[in-house]
Amino acid sequence: MSIKEDIPAIFLDKISPKGLDAIQKCKDFVNDYCLPADELYFKQMSDDPATRWKSTPEITEKLKVKARELGLWNMFLSNHYPEGPGFTNLEYGLMAQYLGRSFVAPEATNTNAPDTGNMELFAKFGTEYQKKKWLHPLLNGEIRSAFLMTEKGTSSSNALNISVSAKLNSKGNYVLNGVKWFASGAGDPRCAVWLVMCKTSDKSGKEAYKNHTVLVLDAKKALSSGKARLIRPLTVFGYDDAPHGHCEVMFDDYEVPTEDTPNAILASEGRGFELIQSRLGPGRIHHCMRLIGAGEFALLRANQRANHRIIFGKPMNQRESFINAFAQNKIDIQSCRLLVLNAAHKIDISNAKVAQQDIAMAKIETPRTILKILDWAIQVFGAEGVSQDVELARMYAHARTLRIADGPDEAHLNQLGRYHAKKYQEADQFFENYKNFPKL
Amino acid sequence: MSIKEDIPAIFLDKISPKGLDAIQKCKDFVNDYCLPADELYFKQMSDDPATRWKSTPEITEKLKVKARELGLWNMFLSNHYPEGPGFTNLEYGLMAQYLGRSFVAPEATNTNAPDTGNMELFAKFGTEYQKKKWLHPLLNGEIRSAFLMTEKGTSSSNALNISVSAKLNSKGNYVLNGVKWFASGAGDPRCAVWLVMCKTSDKSGKEAYKNHTVLVLDAKKALSSGKARLIRPLTVFGYDDAPHGHCEVMFDDYEVPTEDTPNAILASEGRGFELIQSRLGPGRIHHCMRLIGAGEFALLRANQRANHRIIFGKPMNQRESFINAFAQNKIDIQSCRLLVLNAAHKIDISNAKVAQQDIAMAKIETPRTILKILDWAIQVFGAEGVSQDVELARMYAHARTLRIADGPDEAHLNQLGRYHAKKYQEADQFFENYKNFPKL
Amino acid sequence: MSIKEDIPAIFLDKISPKGLDAIQKCKDFVNDYCLPADELYFKQMSDDPATRWKSTPEITEKLKVKARELGLWNMFLSNHYPEGPGFTNLEYGLMAQYLGRSFVAPEATNTNAPDTGNMELFAKFGTEYQKKKWLHPLLNGEIRSAFLMTEKGTSSSNALNISVSAKLNSKGNYVLNGVKWFASGAGDPRCAVWLVMCKTSDKSGKEAYKNHTVLVLDAKKALSSGKARLIRPLTVFGYDDAPHGHCEVMFDDYEVPTEDTPNAILASEGRGFELIQSRLGPGRIHHCMRLIGAGEFALLRANQRANHRIIFGKPMNQRESFINAFAQNKIDIQSCRLLVLNAAHKIDISNAKVAQQDIAMAKIETPRTILKILDWAIQVFGAEGVSQDVELARMYAHARTLRIADGPDEAHLNQLGRYHAKKYQEADQFFENYKNFPKL
Amino acid sequence: MSIKEDIPAIFLDKISPKGLDAIQKCKDFVNDYCLPADELYFKQMSDDPATRWKSTPEITEKLKVKARELGLWNMFLSNHYPEGPGFTNLEYGLMAQYLGRSFVAPEATNTNAPDTGNMELFAKFGTEYQKKKWLHPLLNGEIRSAFLMTEKGTSSSNALNISVSAKLNSKGNYVLNGVKWFASGAGDPRCAVWLVMCKTSDKSGKEAYKNHTVLVLDAKKALSSGKARLIRPLTVFGYDDAPHGHCEVMFDDYEVPTEDTPNAILASEGRGFELIQSRLGPGRIHHCMRLIGAGEFALLRANQRANHRIIFGKPMNQRESFINAFAQNKIDIQSCRLLVLNAAHKIDISNAKVAQQDIAMAKIETPRTILKILDWAIQVFGAEGVSQDVELARMYAHARTLRIADGPDEAHLNQLGRYHAKKYQEADQFFENYKNFPKL
Repeated sequence: MSIKEDIPAIFLDKISPKGLDAIQKCKDFVNDYCLPADELYFKQMSDDPATRWKSTPEITEKLKVKARELGLWNMFLSNHYPEGPGFTNLEYGLMAQYLGRSFVAPEATNTNAPDTGNMELFAKFGTEYQKKKWLHPLLNGEIRSAFLMTEKGTSSSNALNISVSAKLNSKGNYVLNGVKWFASGAGDPRCAVWLVMCKTSDKSGKEAYKNHTVLVLDAKKALSSGKARLIRPLTVFGYDDAPHGHCEVMFDDYEVPTEDTPNAILASEGRGFELIQSRLGPGRIHHCMRLIGAGEFALLRANQRANHRIIFGKPMNQRESFINAFAQNKIDIQSCRLLVLNAAHKIDISNAKVAQQDIAMAKIETPRTILKILDWAIQVFGAEGVSQDVELARMYAHARTLRIADGPDEAHLNQLGRYHAKKYQEADQFFENYKNFPKL
Repeated sequence: MSIKEDIPAIFLDKISPKGLDAIQKCKDFVNDYCLPADELYFKQMSDDPATRWKSTPEITEKLKVKARELGLWNMFLSNHYPEGPGFTNLEYGLMAQYLGRSFVAPEATNTNAPDTGNMELFAKFGTEYQKKKWLHPLLNGEIRSAFLMTEKGTSSSNALNISVSAKLNSKGNYVLNGVKWFASGAGDPRCAVWLVMCKTSDKSGKEAYKNHTVLVLDAKKALSSGKARLIRPLTVFGYDDAPHGHCEVMFDDYEVPTEDTPNAILASEGRGFELIQSRLGPGRIHHCMRLIGAGEFALLRANQRANHRIIFGKPMNQRESFINAFAQNKIDIQSCRLLVLNAAHKIDISNAKVAQQDIAMAKIETPRTILKILDWAIQVFGAEGVSQDVELARMYAHARTLRIADGPDEAHLNQLGRYHAKKYQEADQFFENYKNFPKL
Repeated sequence: MSIKEDIPAIFLDKISPKGLDAIQKCKDFVNDYCLPADELYFKQMSDDPATRWKSTPEITEKLKVKARELGLWNMFLSNHYPEGPGFTNLEYGLMAQYLGRSFVAPEATNTNAPDTGNMELFAKFGTEYQKKKWLHPLLNGEIRSAFLMTEKGTSSSNALNISVSAKLNSKGNYVLNGVKWFASGAGDPRCAVWLVMCKTSDKSGKEAYKNHTVLVLDAKKALSSGKARLIRPLTVFGYDDAPHGHCEVMFDDYEVPTEDTPNAILASEGRGFELIQSRLGPGRIHHCMRLIGAGEFALLRANQRANHRIIFGKPMNQRESFINAFAQNKIDIQSCRLLVLNAAHKIDISNAKVAQQDIAMAKIETPRTILKILDWAIQVFGAEGVSQDVELARMYAHARTLRIADGPDEAHLNQLGRYHAKKYQEADQFFENYKNFPKL
Repeated sequence: MSIKEDIPAIFLDKISPKGLDAIQKCKDFVNDYCLPADELYFKQMSDDPATRWKSTPEITEKLKVKARELGLWNMFLSNHYPEGPGFTNLEYGLMAQYLGRSFVAPEATNTNAPDTGNMELFAKFGTEYQKKKWLHPLLNGEIRSAFLMTEKGTSSSNALNISVSAKLNSKGNYVLNGVKWFASGAGDPRCAVWLVMCKTSDKSGKEAYKNHTVLVLDAKKALSSGKARLIRPLTVFGYDDAPHGHCEVMFDDYEVPTEDTPNAILASEGRGFELIQSRLGPGRIHHCMRLIGAGEFALLRANQRANHRIIFGKPMNQRESFINAFAQNKIDIQSCRLLVLNAAHKIDISNAKVAQQDIAMAKIETPRTILKILDWAIQVFGAEGVSQDVELARMYAHARTLRIADGPDEAHLNQLGRYHAKKYQEADQFFENYKNFPKL
């Protein structure tokens, strides 16, 4: 089947020949290499807590070599960035809907969160030193990174609540105190750099938006100091997602080494809030597109099962309730796809700020929809659906976090509603206009 | 507010300057003329059953003059038709989302069902005689028409069930027997022509698809014969939609006059099934786009009410439950808009047959979504919402029929599901592919 | 089928033999007399606006005679009232689930709103004079009544918003000014008495709850004065519900006649708020039980249609999507039935105030659920479902008002949530308790 | 708070004083002992795969001692069984709604699945030998048991699909072949007996219902033979639920030891289907009641979080969207509670067969509802909600299996729909009755 059938009509003339070629290659790479490799990946993971976090499955590195050969590398870096391969957000979005089918595909193509958002930040705000030291190895897939934002017990979607403190000591070095958690990727033995959202001042009122700063820490040094510690991995449902991991990280008077101090701030002090905002737009779209891939994959799996499941004498794939649910799921995925790609295109022709409401719509609608579909596919499978024998429960657990990460549904919904409600204040005037009905 | 804000990013570069100009004019015409005229329209309608069906509100004709002046006339006839004003389905779709806000706007611009579908049929399949006699007056808004399809007690969405018979008598004229109902528009005193889906033969098996023929009847002659009768208007919820009406029509040995016989068949005998199919594609899209207009109008109304409704001391428009529901409604409308316009564009670049699945998706999703929104807006209003003082209950009743007309949701869902399920038979092969995982 | 099958197990031992007998008679009366009479009722109604509001179908009076013969009269007056026939709310609830199937049954058994609530008020708070003058004819079904509460443009569920004023003039008579609407039953030519919620003072703070008073007006005198006028009937989704009607009523310096003044106040001045509260509890339960009857009736209708509707070669009643939806509807009705009857029983063993949260749950859940079922049944019927040929659209329109009347869903939901949230403030203490875990 | 507030009004007079006392004790035991012990339980579990399945947390045994002291032991065995403590299903149901709040409470009171169902089977169908050997130690909580039913790749809810074979060899011993999976509890080191659903003959037609037999195997002997093997634990959303476990078990020519043969059949050969049916009724109710406990617990947790979560300056517990969702959840739990307890009572006054449709309703509605509530509570918590720091994700994973176990929702829904649709065939006759409308 041509990939053109996977692309809604309205986008067809917006894809460059180069983009189309890469999308096709991406689909083939995922189907032929990544999906079959997923099983191997989990086999190569140790179950033993003693070794589970100390190495990574070797299949990943092999896939990375293959992906680079195919030119499927860093596609997320849209053509706004000179460091990237020159695709639009729309084109990458269409690739991501294949990447999302497979567990290993994002890392295999160096397009996995949170590295993507971190690379964007370094590319946009990094000094030459920071680029050389962190961005280039990240772009090459040699190291990995984490973004330490969320804190326990607060609504971290409101960055003003962030409390991990970084104070300058007499040596002019920042000293960090406090606890972060759900630092995704911090468990990986290759994780070399942490971006840490810290509170560096304590102003109030409107100035409060300048209280936070993103610090760039050498993760290995921090851990070897003993004053920054990976306390434990958090689980998502029952998954620890090793070796990537979602870690709780404690800073206990951790002092940034003097030699690192000159390069320890991203952008400048007090711009944490701004960096956070800038980081989120395209990232949300990436998550959504991968989810759409997960949804399509779930439909494939469900269909495979329905082909063989006989229910009271009739194959499931001929039962009306299956067929109708299947159709509804196709509609729902298509709706999300259009929302997401429309937002991606809007970023391409303007920027993430202009596209904010479109991004919010996609961000709210997609995870919820895909969860519904994954849940349905689990039910199609029966007991097998919740087990490790199919990908669905794992995909579900991951998708569930995306109703929370980067702002919970409710926060986006409320923001969106207030935005539109403001515009609709004009409703009064609109209906007032009736009275001016001209004589005809 | 510029109309560009009403157009999703992805469509912006697909609208011609002429189209953009017409869309803007259409929005202004609806807001400034049609919406204020709606109230007048209902005042000009008689409540007395004796006169209610005998005349039509004069405001309509005045609006028609204005619309023609503005070039807002027959926009539904896409640039596939030489008789039309030369807009794409996409462009018309964007106009229709304003037309759908107002009760009178579609007729005022000669874009109201069922005339639109009937005009398309005449334009595509009519003889020169039929075009002169029926199409041209229809295009000029001088007469109106009805399509007599549905029959009581059968699933008329399956045309094979149609049973009103037309048999040739010894004079070579068709004689009709049976009862049609829900013949929308047949109540209008200006209704001059009926297209009647009849059973003209009784073959079985695959040939059954050739049993039906569309006859073209002069409505005035038929009624004056006494052998074709408007039995009664059906109501939709409690609305009779006079003078348009949804009529039950009985044929009791009605013989087509000899002088009309040569022009009484559309296309040729046995092609009824094909004509029906051809008629439905764009028509469904038109309905959906108007519904989106209805949905946006409901949001405006809801906001107007919320601006002034104080609930336990706090204006409704500042209450979280209102704001969040409002936002969700915006997302849902936007999803439908993208589905509908994507389908419209696919018709533009190919044809309705190729776009069939996209049309089905829009047709399933849109009425249901808009009903949800109208219902919410009714609830925002309280008792007023169900009354004649706002448009919402009437809009709801109309929208409710669109989950049934042109095929009920379930029929489309089932067809869509079987289409995709067929493609997904390949799921087995897809997962089989895992075994061929090449060594890396 | 024995009526015992219609009664959930848990209630079986709570029905007296007398109650059981009456429930059986009620079922038979509805099925054998009322349902067949519904069609006749609508035939006996005039369509002509000139006469439509001037008489009532004679079949109703005939049914009333029959109902009294059977002892099916005023069953709503629970055994708390000496005037009633001595059933519990639970027993009446079980009768109401049959009454709700038919349009005429409630009036035929003198259990129709708003007369029921008005009779309860007179029985509880009326003077001897008021009982003789109004309650006894009402109990005998000789006259009818209306409750004038709702006002346009305000959230009337908050009685503090009521603004129609009644001020004492120099003669010591109340003079009324303002407009009420949705005064259900006021259109009936037999309507003889209005209970009018008026604002009689203008205190603030906590005293505001004593600003309102229920006045008892002689409707005929009021109308003949010319200073109280029925302005127009409101429609509910196109239905005017003549001759009952939902009327807009204007008071323009209407002075209560001197001879009526001594008996023009129900209870005493300033107790309007209290009377309103007292009126609503059982009334809400009655509405809900009738709705459950409507829901079961819709299932019967849907099944009848599905028995005969052939969809692509297979009867609808054998299609999985019909069967599964049917089952879900049975579950949903049963849930509501249990909620409603549990609340009715709680009123029986305590009172409406104690049962407030249980009543709220039933009131929120039942209309919504029954609307869903009616909507499904409409869809099962197709076009016929929205027409006057089946009862479903009319039932839907009525049920829709019950998400608004007696307080909209949202008001009840919010009240219920705050009630429980208050109790759950103890959650903190609950989890605090963990720390006291005793050594085992 | 008195437990009477937790009991719907309608059940109050059906609880014996002894029952009421036990319910109160049960609530206190869960709140004061079990809930605080849950945390300890997980701490006492080893994470090391080498030891994880070899021991059980000692806290469980301590709790069991306490529970027996309190008389909270085997309460599930309704007063139909002489071996039980003499509570009704209704009374146990009310206890189970507390037990379901805690992870350890069911085992602590010896009321955990699958032991409960297995004990019922032994009590009802066991020989004296089987009772002495297996039932009594189970009743004493000395050993544990598993039921091996489900098989991979088939719809095991239709027992006819079960394929693990047991054939008599020349020695007159059964020889088993095939694979079972999701054998819950088989991982526990204390698991001593397996009940295995086997295919013992290969008849067709109606006789096919006699092809299956439940064999009683000594688990320790089977495992030590090497011919029956625990292949691996299955996971449920990442949880392995060690040491209980959901195991895949392979039989590879496993021969029942000659000395065990005389007691290896439960009831008699060919009655497997009947035993399965008998096992499920009350068990489904137990699951549902515990789920209701889980739902109430989730509301407590959500409230605790909302008390302290500040969202843009306002505590979550004062935000309208939280309050309204909370209220809706209370309604939904109450609906399920009434469905479940009504079914339990129906079993008490008749039997599980008579109550089949009521049980089905509860079984369909409850897991789905509780999942919705757990999901909402997770969202209230944000990231913490999916982690090991609160119970919600674990509870969700467990509840999710209950839409599959003991028959998936769809199977019950379909059965229920066909049952009612059959009754409603009478719809035709019902409406036919209209024609007999007697003259009044």
